Amino acid sequence: MGTDEGLMNYLYQNLERELAQEILQGRLPAGSKLPSIRYQCEQLGLSKATVIHAYQRLEAAGLIEARFKSGFYVVGQGTNRPIPSESLVHSEPQLVDTSDLMRDIMEHSAAFDIAPQGSHSRDLPTGIVELNRSIARALRSQKEADHQYYDEPAGVAEIREQIAERYQRLGCRFTSSEVTMSAGCQHGLALALQMCCQPGDIVAVESPGFYGVLQLIESMGLKVLEIPVSAQHGMSINALETAAQNWNIKACVVTPSFATPTGACLPIAQRHQLLALSEEKDFMVIEDDIYGDLSFSQRIPPLKQLDRQGKVILCGSFSKALSRDVRMGWVVTEQFRQLRRLKMINLLAVCKFVQRGLVDFIADGSYDKHLRKQKFLLQQQRDQLIALLDQYWTPLGEVRVSQPQGGIALWVELEDRYDLNECYLQARSEGILITPGNLFTAQDRFKNCLRLSFAHNWSGPRVKALIRLAEIIKAGH
Amino acid sequence: MGTDEGLMNYLYQNLERELAQEILQGRLPAGSKLPSIRYQCEQLGLSKATVIHAYQRLEAAGLIEARFKSGFYVVGQGTNRPIPSESLVHSEPQLVDTSDLMRDIMEHSAAFDIAPQGSHSRDLPTGIVELNRSIARALRSQKEADHQYYDEPAGVAEIREQIAERYQRLGCRFTSSEVTMSAGCQHGLALALQMCCQPGDIVAVESPGFYGVLQLIESMGLKVLEIPVSAQHGMSINALETAAQNWNIKACVVTPSFATPTGACLPIAQRHQLLALSEEKDFMVIEDDIYGDLSFSQRIPPLKQLDRQGKVILCGSFSKALSRDVRMGWVVTEQFRQLRRLKMINLLAVCKFVQRGLVDFIADGSYDKHLRKQKFLLQQQRDQLIALLDQYWTPLGEVRVSQPQGGIALWVELEDRYDLNECYLQARSEGILITPGNLFTAQDRFKNCLRLSFAHNWSGPRVKALIRLAEIIKAGH
Repeated sequence: MGTDEGLMNYLYQNLERELAQEILQGRLPAGSKLPSIRYQCEQLGLSKATVIHAYQRLEAAGLIEARFKSGFYVVGQGTNRPIPSESLVHSEPQLVDTSDLMRDIMEHSAAFDIAPQGSHSRDLPTGIVELNRSIARALRSQKEADHQYYDEPAGVAEIREQIAERYQRLGCRFTSSEVTMSAGCQHGLALALQMCCQPGDIVAVESPGFYGVLQLIESMGLKVLEIPVSAQHGMSINALETAAQNWNIKACVVTPSFATPTGACLPIAQRHQLLALSEEKDFMVIEDDIYGDLSFSQRIPPLKQLDRQGKVILCGSFSKALSRDVRMGWVVTEQFRQLRRLKMINLLAVCKFVQRGLVDFIADGSYDKHLRKQKFLLQQQRDQLIALLDQYWTPLGEVRVSQPQGGIALWVELEDRYDLNECYLQARSEGILITPGNLFTAQDRFKNCLRLSFAHNWSGPRVKALIRLAEIIKAGH
Repeated sequence: MGTDEGLMNYLYQNLERELAQEILQGRLPAGSKLPSIRYQCEQLGLSKATVIHAYQRLEAAGLIEARFKSGFYVVGQGTNRPIPSESLVHSEPQLVDTSDLMRDIMEHSAAFDIAPQGSHSRDLPTGIVELNRSIARALRSQKEADHQYYDEPAGVAEIREQIAERYQRLGCRFTSSEVTMSAGCQHGLALALQMCCQPGDIVAVESPGFYGVLQLIESMGLKVLEIPVSAQHGMSINALETAAQNWNIKACVVTPSFATPTGACLPIAQRHQLLALSEEKDFMVIEDDIYGDLSFSQRIPPLKQLDRQGKVILCGSFSKALSRDVRMGWVVTEQFRQLRRLKMINLLAVCKFVQRGLVDFIADGSYDKHLRKQKFLLQQQRDQLIALLDQYWTPLGEVRVSQPQGGIALWVELEDRYDLNECYLQARSEGILITPGNLFTAQDRFKNCLRLSFAHNWSGPRVKALIRLAEIIKAGH
């Protein structure tokens, strides 16, 4: 900005540098709470604005994080905890061929719950009661005629406006006319893939990446091209670029924010790089934003926000952030007419009264209130999970763990000698459900990895399951 | 039974013969009410059982019909009203290529309402209030944990048991383990076709038949083979048999009871013939039973009831008989594992609380009560529609009309010179929605036909629309 550098040595920078050093040198370990803003003001004689500014810069740097109604905490990156290695895939496009074992795992893994039996005692006490009330209210005001007509192919206008508006606040420029409601995010991904691809086409995906997409690719007779992923920064766009030189990629499915299974976030530079590549090589980007509302700090705008050429089809849903039972998602694309046609052919319409209930729930602020509470709980549960692994999984040797700043799952990489596929059936016979890493690829990889979810509270049965699981893995080796 | 023929000249036969002659000779015209059973007993000195027996035999012969809480009425076949001609299709398997006009029609035709604007004043006063209450009750008892888990791939156990039990009462032998819930009947048909067919495969359908199936065939890259239909007895199985000699049919989609657009019912002999053919030629039969619960007399068992070799995939839904907004259907097949897998890939799961609400609604008898009322109204509305056509459409010349004994629509065949496609846009610009016959084929046929629905009450605006429509058709010629 042309200001003299000497003058830049602001007070906030001293505080920022000092705290950053303490974190990076391990004197302030992951999970420890920073002094309150008031305390710093009093102790250091700084203004409130100065302390807040320093904290915000540390937060932006990913060193600390704000927790709802609690204060600032040191995040994991500052620790010496090893993170999973970047996957190095050298693959060619291939058909997906899912084994029966993987199918069995898949049917159980969507619950994201290691011990689904008897652990429900105290689960997220968030906005569900209000949600139920809103939908019941919508039902009561549903007229008889409403039951005689299918919903519009686009979905209910009000909810599409709310969804567009929420994205507009993040800088997106599309309107409700480009939003189409779907029966959840998987349904949106299915329609998007159907719109972009013909049998035999090549689809690039994250590796490890969401198994639901691999399943769609298999069922539609497409070919998958797996692109390496870093547990911190998501899909390697450089690797995608190389792949795009060699292969005619038709679509790329990517989860830029808190991708399953790693929880990684694609940095802004790579987002631009991905879009430029999609324009140059003329492929569509199917963006899975299902975890977007579950960022522990600021909501990250979707990739679609940067899209100027209509290359991105944005898919989202209420399933992860609110309810897996409302079966309501959305797809944003300039080619909405074609998408709605495919939706009509597949299932005609989605449920009007559920949409109207959600409209009510969002409009009166209940959804945002719910998100604040839930993100706080998820963050807490993530830390509990990491602490539990530190405490109970050391007998397994080195345990690498991703450091998700949002979402509901982390990626655990064990030493090469372990095979989680081998442990799956034994664990299941004891009521413990795991999601082996091999589920997240069409190749013979990631068998020493698994996804662990922190979507549920760490009640006794779940902690017990985690402890027992380490024993099973150890014994299975 | 070995009884002397002379003894067979029972009293009920005299009455039956006499009434049948009066009907067939037009002295008792369609829609006229038969004398009450008590009146006949008094006048003819017959026992109640004798009169009831005669009436039941006339009903079984399709000459009269019982109306809920009202008595017996002469049905249309006895009149001289011409019914639409049997379609004679000489077709080869072909890809479906839908025009934009047809797509526009399709997006509006699902409402089955000729005048959807401003006609909602008094619509079917049936069980919708109770339905809304049941679902709201299910929501209230939905626990927080329920929102955190997807429904089972099969659907909620209780509703699958209810559905299986209702079919078992009709003689079906499958159990709830073969029932899978879907997001409506179109969704079930999509999954069933996906399960049976690969791109390029040949699918036999009724012609005219449901356009939603033609759309699925188009989107899946299948080939359609159109089989002629009689407006009274449905698909010509003889024609299907000839086609099956020439072509390798992979699946046959059929609506044996009250098929759209004709309302035809496949007689029992042809049902057996169809199944034998499917076994001989080894193709699957996808049965659309969406209108099954809307039979004006006894519920007709589905084709699946006769299926001994697992050749029939039965699809049904609550959309036509109860609510188009609950988005809940079902698929019955022995290959339920494969079907559930396809469902999971497509949209993971359907809504638990909606299913639980329906369980409650069915269990307390509300659904059956609703069906009784609705069938009574539909029958009344069908007769009103036919009377309106008699009254207002004579300027168009000969108007052939099907005589559906259930369902929600009838098939109208006008003289060859008329082209309903030509009238569609003009009618639409005046707020009148029609469903031209051409929508129900992939060929250049049925342009002088249209489907008219009696799903809605004949309020003033709908009668006005019907009158105005005749003028538009006449002028368009």
